[in-house]
Amino acid sequence: MADTWLPSLITDTPQQGFELAITLSRRGVKYTQPDPEVLHRLRPEYAEDHQALTAASQVVALNFQTVAAANNYWRK
Amino acid sequence: MADTWLPSLITDTPQQGFELAITLSRRGVKYTQPDPEVLHRLRPEYAEDHQALTAASQVVALNFQTVAAANNYWRK
Amino acid sequence: MADTWLPSLITDTPQQGFELAITLSRRGVKYTQPDPEVLHRLRPEYAEDHQALTAASQVVALNFQTVAAANNYWRK
Amino acid sequence: MADTWLPSLITDTPQQGFELAITLSRRGVKYTQPDPEVLHRLRPEYAEDHQALTAASQVVALNFQTVAAANNYWRK
Amino acid sequence: MADTWLPSLITDTPQQGFELAITLSRRGVKYTQPDPEVLHRLRPEYAEDHQALTAASQVVALNFQTVAAANNYWRK
Amino acid sequence: MADTWLPSLITDTPQQGFELAITLSRRGVKYTQPDPEVLHRLRPEYAEDHQALTAASQVVALNFQTVAAANNYWRK
Repeated sequence: MADTWLPSLITDTPQQGFELAITLSRRGVKYTQPDPEVLHRLRPEYAEDHQALTAASQVVALNFQTVAAANNYWRK
Repeated sequence: MADTWLPSLITDTPQQGFELAITLSRRGVKYTQPDPEVLHRLRPEYAEDHQALTAASQVVALNFQTVAAANNYWRK
Repeated sequence: MADTWLPSLITDTPQQGFELAITLSRRGVKYTQPDPEVLHRLRPEYAEDHQALTAASQVVALNFQTVAAANNYWRK
Repeated sequence: MADTWLPSLITDTPQQGFELAITLSRRGVKYTQPDPEVLHRLRPEYAEDHQALTAASQVVALNFQTVAAANNYWRK
Repeated sequence: MADTWLPSLITDTPQQGFELAITLSRRGVKYTQPDPEVLHRLRPEYAEDHQALTAASQVVALNFQTVAAANNYWRK
Repeated sequence: MADTWLPSLITDTPQQGFELAITLSRRGVKYTQPDPEVLHRLRPEYAEDHQALTAASQVVALNFQTVAAANNYWRK
């Protein structure tokens, strides 16, 4: 992957940090399965499986830990 | 998601922090499956499956780690 | 949940901290499934399933990380 | 559980810390299933199931993170 | 494994850090299953199984936590 | 286990730290299933199951977090 998709972990707000955590979680999948067609095909069963949704939320939580620490928890 | 749902990680009490952790966990699901109807349909099987309940509690625990650190553990 | 069940993360001893971690883990379940009757019904299959017991212990371990950090690991 | 089983997280050596992490992991199970007979009955299937063994090792790893931090990683 | 594959956790950019986290995740697999032929054979079923992809992304998230902390989150 | 297998978490290089994380992960299994014959018997199915390999890699990632922190991330 030659493009720059992660120039920084710093965000203006916690919410943007949460959205960055989602990006990180999806990139973690894409590095293993880069074919967008396969990902697209897997999506329906994925997005209607509560176990999969909870597992996705767990990966987001882990990445949000990293992003939040990087931003010193957006403390003023 | 254009609305602001996460203006800050800071809460007054640990309990509010725990409730914020639950919000974060649910948002992690919603970003993957934004359709409220699907989420509603999945709920019954979800909420009566002990494995799913423990998995949900695990995501809450991860997000509570983040919120608690952000609040310096509400130490006086 | 209007009652106050988490006034503080600070405990006198590590063991009380571990017990607080168990409380946090159970609350994480209760927020998803608040009906005590359902929780009661799920309990037998749950408490005799080694996979479920290990998963429960994992959530406790995550919450204990938080409580132990909050208490500065009860170092003297 | 009235007995004192966790007076401190401090240990003399990393190895004792690892053994304490195992104790914590088992206690996490015992709080959910306190009946020693049930635990005994579950043991054979448990200890010969590679998925269960890895899951157990994961809980130990989480608790070892806590114990190691408490001991400042036994740095001299 | 005699070769040096991990001389440092320090990277120039967050993105390189994320890629190092992927390397660490794959190495974690290789130490358990060093036979490249077996790994190659497992790949197709793996890369088309959404549960496996999420699990892989979770390991990457854990390793990224380590790499990001090592780099002090690439804060300027 | 009377032998000393973990005298220190300090290693010279990150790679040795990663290998120590693997040792910790295996020890976590051995404390639950000390019989080498059983472990040997479980190995084939284990090492060819991609889910098991990812789970193993996850435990290594958790232990590597501990070892890396202990070594202050081998920063110069």
